[in-house]
Amino acid sequence: MDNWKSELDCVFNPRNIAFIGASKNVTKWGHIILGNIVAGQFKGDIFPVNPREEWIMERKVYRTVGEIPADEIDLAVIVVPSKVVPGILRECADKGVKGAIVVPGGFSEEGGEGIEIERELAVIAEDAGMRLVGPNTMGVYCGRSSLYAMMPPVRPKPGPVAFVAQSGNLGTQMMSIGQRKEIGFSKFAASGNEAATAASDYLKYFGRDPDTKVLLAYIEGLKDGREFIDAASEITREKPLIVFKGGQTAAGMKAASSHTGAMAGSAQIYNAAFKQCGAVIASTPNEMLDLAWAFAELPLPRSNRVGILTWGGGWGVVTADACEKAGLAIPPLSENTIAAIDKLLPPYWSRNNPIDLVGTLDRDNHIKCLEALLADDGIDAAIVLGVVGGSTLVTAHVETMMGAPAAVQAFVEHFKEVDRQIETRLLELTEQYKKPIIGVAVASDYKPCHTEKGRIVAAPTPHMAVRMLAGMVDYNKYRDSLEED
Amino acid sequence: MDNWKSELDCVFNPRNIAFIGASKNVTKWGHIILGNIVAGQFKGDIFPVNPREEWIMERKVYRTVGEIPADEIDLAVIVVPSKVVPGILRECADKGVKGAIVVPGGFSEEGGEGIEIERELAVIAEDAGMRLVGPNTMGVYCGRSSLYAMMPPVRPKPGPVAFVAQSGNLGTQMMSIGQRKEIGFSKFAASGNEAATAASDYLKYFGRDPDTKVLLAYIEGLKDGREFIDAASEITREKPLIVFKGGQTAAGMKAASSHTGAMAGSAQIYNAAFKQCGAVIASTPNEMLDLAWAFAELPLPRSNRVGILTWGGGWGVVTADACEKAGLAIPPLSENTIAAIDKLLPPYWSRNNPIDLVGTLDRDNHIKCLEALLADDGIDAAIVLGVVGGSTLVTAHVETMMGAPAAVQAFVEHFKEVDRQIETRLLELTEQYKKPIIGVAVASDYKPCHTEKGRIVAAPTPHMAVRMLAGMVDYNKYRDSLEED
Repeated sequence: MDNWKSELDCVFNPRNIAFIGASKNVTKWGHIILGNIVAGQFKGDIFPVNPREEWIMERKVYRTVGEIPADEIDLAVIVVPSKVVPGILRECADKGVKGAIVVPGGFSEEGGEGIEIERELAVIAEDAGMRLVGPNTMGVYCGRSSLYAMMPPVRPKPGPVAFVAQSGNLGTQMMSIGQRKEIGFSKFAASGNEAATAASDYLKYFGRDPDTKVLLAYIEGLKDGREFIDAASEITREKPLIVFKGGQTAAGMKAASSHTGAMAGSAQIYNAAFKQCGAVIASTPNEMLDLAWAFAELPLPRSNRVGILTWGGGWGVVTADACEKAGLAIPPLSENTIAAIDKLLPPYWSRNNPIDLVGTLDRDNHIKCLEALLADDGIDAAIVLGVVGGSTLVTAHVETMMGAPAAVQAFVEHFKEVDRQIETRLLELTEQYKKPIIGVAVASDYKPCHTEKGRIVAAPTPHMAVRMLAGMVDYNKYRDSLEED
Repeated sequence: MDNWKSELDCVFNPRNIAFIGASKNVTKWGHIILGNIVAGQFKGDIFPVNPREEWIMERKVYRTVGEIPADEIDLAVIVVPSKVVPGILRECADKGVKGAIVVPGGFSEEGGEGIEIERELAVIAEDAGMRLVGPNTMGVYCGRSSLYAMMPPVRPKPGPVAFVAQSGNLGTQMMSIGQRKEIGFSKFAASGNEAATAASDYLKYFGRDPDTKVLLAYIEGLKDGREFIDAASEITREKPLIVFKGGQTAAGMKAASSHTGAMAGSAQIYNAAFKQCGAVIASTPNEMLDLAWAFAELPLPRSNRVGILTWGGGWGVVTADACEKAGLAIPPLSENTIAAIDKLLPPYWSRNNPIDLVGTLDRDNHIKCLEALLADDGIDAAIVLGVVGGSTLVTAHVETMMGAPAAVQAFVEHFKEVDRQIETRLLELTEQYKKPIIGVAVASDYKPCHTEKGRIVAAPTPHMAVRMLAGMVDYNKYRDSLEED
């Protein structure tokens, strides 16, 4: 079911790049995107093209793509006005360029003659066997080749998540949020108007990509639904695919149609199709990222039975509610687990799931309670509320006190070290019990520590932790259903 | 409908405090809470009580509350083991103390004799006409008296939001998140086991409080539902009341019952009751805070017609979807508005709501588009996506570039100044058009600038902006329905 369109190595791992429309003007995209590629330390040669310049960013500039002294050019990044693009693309075809990213807008999304010009691009590309990204795209990223060919200055770290977005600004801004969360990305593409290469083509490529473990798709509309379903069904046999659909309502579809020209189609039909092919459906763009993080880092839960460990009762209540609403079970604890925790917590502990740590301060003990919970055969996954991120509370305390003395600063450092130790233990327990653990530092925007074993997965809120586990449970269930067939 | 139990000035605005169970040990609550009160610069006298100490925090310590050399004591904060509390409370009654906060747990929430002891406290308090907060409470806060009598080191700034929480840890941690968001609070109480003073009593008091404009309640269970409904119905005639219910599911109710001993009751009944009395129902604790922020700072929208201004198409799609799902309308723009924006944006702009700024960079122009949108009689409120918080993107850029030269830093400063100017204009436009505007800096955890006119209201995500407006629309509709009756 693969086709040549999804053979996209020339786009993501090019040996070299012709940058057509390179500019010295810092306010022009022909400067900004080239700057992003250069600053991103792309591993191959970069050949700027501009008939009116000689040197840009300390690189010799060529008047045309034809003049570039390289026998084979893998990728052209094209940043010139839409009307000029067909001629440029023909020159690329003549030079034997393998793939092209057409950045500018002014094509089918504007209607009128833009539709015709875009069709022309597709024909030129198809005739030449050239891969075509866009037009009207904010670009692509690849971790392996260190290619940051995007409009905004987004620089995520390399990692296992690949993302295709039918909206460039939403896509690149999600990448920026991912960067702040330190989620690692293998590849990204803003598919733009999809004149030749559709979201399904990128997904097929990502599905085969050994650097990619988790796939994300922001979808506004599909011209070929069958193609997408086939691609997605194939992918989800091996890798999780997380989808967020823009244009779920009449208002959203109207906005989408004036935005990329995509026909958005009925939300019900899309959701049914996504479910049928085993994709995990995110309910917000941010959830898409948090799901990606969980899938990338955690083992899948065997089933839906969640254990909750909470430093305070209220968050346990809120999280139990959210679990039940999301179809996750909060089973009672086994007798063995209760007996183990009887030795750890004061006699008035609840003997129930959620396990309320009743405000005790001994953090070693909290970890022992977590271990007892994970050892329980009736528990498939754990949400840990308020045990991680203790240093942020202490730091807030110090900030509140202001002008804190050195002794108090030392106290903060000590707490940070304790956080690191606790999170290392969480990572060890995940490995030992093969059960996912999600930490929530309820009172803060907590960023997990860097430990020698990596970083724990943390959710910004209990509700997000629940969404992350629910997505993993759904996907595991889907995979199980495949095996049963 | 008021009763003496809701006359809580002695608790929130005490002239002085007897702190019973004061400790020198930094790991004891008797030290931590006293430290929070002292560091919070409480405006009245503080009398530590402890039979075994002479001086604590440079204050003379009294052996018993009876020995304190003050004729009238407004508030006792009691931090001693549960079994000792009845005796202490009697001493307080003998001394004529007007109100008491009983911090420790070990009462009805543990069952057994704890239930009896708690009943005893209620009788002592009632006989003496003493207000009783708790037991099993994390304390109270009041901005006017600068009283930070809470277990955690939370120090929100004074402002118009009052909050009662039936979970101390959830409540104080929400206050901590509010502090980081710079939401101003007038008062807070963790109602604990509610032996004598129930959530409804605090709400009645907040309802009459001239410092309070918006009320929040985290509710796990109500012993007297009628009392709550009567209180809430009275309050919502004048002030918005935002409620979040913990224990909405079987799992959540079970957790709540082992946590505070409250009977959680059916979620459907609670939700129907909350709606009936005009309360706004939040779907997560975080949403409660963002709703509070919006209600505290913005004019109510006349109706549900939202205009969306977006720097990029995808976020407009996502936001339009969220609006429609939340019952908000995205009406088409009037001819006048289209004509006005025709002069501002490139000819290929969508002529539609959302208004897609199609990636233009002239930020003055963005504000002019917003003004045209607000001038449209068919629009009651605006969500502005990506126009605010531009400096965070530039800052991210500089951080990505690393070792950025001084010139680039100056560029960031310039962008921050532009942000300030834009946000000042947003505040002026809100005043001029009497329509709420919510900003979303989609790619970042944006904190609005401090301008001479104050701070704009910003949502962390488009979905939250929609929830904020939807809550305001609901409340305004409720108020309108009262006038019609």
